[in-house]
Amino acid sequence: MTQMKQALEGVITPEMQKVAQTEGLSEEYIAEGLSMGNVVIPANKERNNLKPVGIGQGLSTKVNANIGTSQKKSDSRLEIEKASTAVAAGADTLMDLSTGQDMDYIRKELLKNIELPLGTVPVYQAALKAWHEHDALVEMTAEDIFKAVEQHAGEGVDFVTVHCGVNLEAAERLKKSNRIVDIASRGGSFHLAWILHHEQENPLYADYDRLLEIALKYDVTLSLGDGFRPGSVVDATDRPQIQELVVLGELVKRARDAGVQVMVEGPGHVPIHQVEANIMMQKRICDNAPFYVLGPLVTDVAAGYDHIAAAIGGAVAASAGADFLCYVTPAEHLSLPDIQDVWWGVTASRIAAHAGDIGKGLPGALDRDEQMSRARKELNWEKMQNFALDSEGVALFKKREELSSGEACSMCGDYCAMKIIKDYLKR
Amino acid sequence: MTQMKQALEGVITPEMQKVAQTEGLSEEYIAEGLSMGNVVIPANKERNNLKPVGIGQGLSTKVNANIGTSQKKSDSRLEIEKASTAVAAGADTLMDLSTGQDMDYIRKELLKNIELPLGTVPVYQAALKAWHEHDALVEMTAEDIFKAVEQHAGEGVDFVTVHCGVNLEAAERLKKSNRIVDIASRGGSFHLAWILHHEQENPLYADYDRLLEIALKYDVTLSLGDGFRPGSVVDATDRPQIQELVVLGELVKRARDAGVQVMVEGPGHVPIHQVEANIMMQKRICDNAPFYVLGPLVTDVAAGYDHIAAAIGGAVAASAGADFLCYVTPAEHLSLPDIQDVWWGVTASRIAAHAGDIGKGLPGALDRDEQMSRARKELNWEKMQNFALDSEGVALFKKREELSSGEACSMCGDYCAMKIIKDYLKR
Repeated sequence: MTQMKQALEGVITPEMQKVAQTEGLSEEYIAEGLSMGNVVIPANKERNNLKPVGIGQGLSTKVNANIGTSQKKSDSRLEIEKASTAVAAGADTLMDLSTGQDMDYIRKELLKNIELPLGTVPVYQAALKAWHEHDALVEMTAEDIFKAVEQHAGEGVDFVTVHCGVNLEAAERLKKSNRIVDIASRGGSFHLAWILHHEQENPLYADYDRLLEIALKYDVTLSLGDGFRPGSVVDATDRPQIQELVVLGELVKRARDAGVQVMVEGPGHVPIHQVEANIMMQKRICDNAPFYVLGPLVTDVAAGYDHIAAAIGGAVAASAGADFLCYVTPAEHLSLPDIQDVWWGVTASRIAAHAGDIGKGLPGALDRDEQMSRARKELNWEKMQNFALDSEGVALFKKREELSSGEACSMCGDYCAMKIIKDYLKR
Repeated sequence: MTQMKQALEGVITPEMQKVAQTEGLSEEYIAEGLSMGNVVIPANKERNNLKPVGIGQGLSTKVNANIGTSQKKSDSRLEIEKASTAVAAGADTLMDLSTGQDMDYIRKELLKNIELPLGTVPVYQAALKAWHEHDALVEMTAEDIFKAVEQHAGEGVDFVTVHCGVNLEAAERLKKSNRIVDIASRGGSFHLAWILHHEQENPLYADYDRLLEIALKYDVTLSLGDGFRPGSVVDATDRPQIQELVVLGELVKRARDAGVQVMVEGPGHVPIHQVEANIMMQKRICDNAPFYVLGPLVTDVAAGYDHIAAAIGGAVAASAGADFLCYVTPAEHLSLPDIQDVWWGVTASRIAAHAGDIGKGLPGALDRDEQMSRARKELNWEKMQNFALDSEGVALFKKREELSSGEACSMCGDYCAMKIIKDYLKR
């Protein structure tokens, strides 16, 4: 029984209770969201150390951090350290995107040691196997793909990205389009290469029911990948992207009808004035399924600072209703992130998520800002450190500046507006 | 004759020619914008080394960087180095906000060595004098304030922030409000303290015509300060803020009638969903005067990362029509910035300005993104470095990763979507 099915039968699970408590909402609200499919709680039945997290309508915006090796850079200890960094920085969920040799080891270590919901992209595993055995990823079989999903599910992975919408129809639309960046999604490119090479339908689309069965068995939440997400702001909101979204909308319905928890992944690279429309469109076409956006980056030229380009897009997206932000680090497009990049990536996304929570009118979202502002007025640096989203960041400045409470910082010194006006404004 | 007056008389100045060339617009367009007051070119007649910059409707969004000493931290050489850093990072204008002993020296050095339009806040000079002579900033006289403006103007300062809207009426509104942070503007707090202490009208408001005369004589652009800008997102768009804006709208009209170039400063701290309304309101109330926003920060709890909170608000603001973004550094609210903070602050604001230019539909704004995306598709790291807003940032990663062109980065390695799809997608 998935969380969704239990909600439909009126059962309040411990996971629902925990989520309700964390969000400050009633258990009934959570259960209703789950039963409609507007809320998901990625919680694999095989996990036993999970801190459940709710994602969806009416809940605070969540932040995911990606870690994982590549063929070019494969240091499993470093990746596990990055996962701990992401947790310490305040990520809500974690995805292991490893494509290096030791992906099995890393995934198992994370499932054992990290309490956050864990997501993976099983097709990476299938592709890696084919690469090793046949020196060509397109040699992966439909069986390989489903087996990889079942393997991850059986181990306790809470949500999986599945690029079911990369189908023959969408590939045709891509060919007819004038995109600059044909495909930016790694998993999407695996499937697209496969269907073009074999001239056959994507197994995850052709045999979607088999995927639903696995999801149902373990209560793995499906995260419908956006293989055709724009990889340039110039390509945003084009026909291939929207074609795939239409297909994903149909697949959301089928998942829900089967009692499978499902969310939808979204762009990508989107100019700021198109972000709100993208959110509205996904919510409408996918009938309010939780929306998991990758950025979006509002420009392509911020390389080295893509956490900022993504924070801009993420904040606008969250404010417009996006539920779940995938972090982007300063290393995006240039390198695997290092530890510092992970910290900055999570923090930038948390700022965006919080700004979005204020924007979407989440009850209580402004409380922390109000407390921070009162602390500022009092020049109480201890309190400011506590209320800051990243206390460690403030601590570094406090040390650099030797700030003590009641004293103004070096920006204004004696000319601090807070100090000056206290003496003159009596109310 | 100010740039505005010359435009009204049909004269095309060298400054207009230069701005037209930089913006890729006709000289007539620039002249028309100037004559209506929708565009300003801050260019003091006493400057002889100025690279003119246009700010306003239809022009690319500009970025200002602040430098300057405080009483607590006064190292003039460091501040001058920060100014060079801001120029190297791509700032369009510079403001010297020094309140330390050597403010005269710093201002003169900047005017001599920097080609960007320079702005100051002359009331800091008047307040500093009063502090030294009487140990109380409220002891500054109306004469001190106007003399400071005239001094800066005579030396060649291109634009001055003048808090003319902090008047008795707005002070009364403030008293009746329930703001958390009464006043966040340093200059605003000086004026507010003064009018509350003396129970007299703000000289810059009471004798605004005298200010206009100085502005006219030197063609100093007035930047009408927002003394009551919200210092917390909880206070945003409240009665004191809007009361001041209404007054500023009247003062814009008087400046234009006198042929004085004028722009308007804006918030501050504003929740993301209120940003667009703030821009619309300013444009309407101030009859399309160029809008110079300070951030805005979309949350108060991003201390240590306020350049990101400001980039979010700045991008939304620019997209909605704001013309000029004041940078915010990671040190905001905590300390004077250091060299690295200045670089990051300028870069974050430039990302926001560029995202905003795309959002506001500036012709050609997407060109650079398109070139960057094509370079990405080719895995051409040299080109990517060239098209990045901050080439040095990309250079650092290139070095760290030993990236060579044609090769995928460590994020995906052999599984790079760009590489994979090239082999399979024939069009």
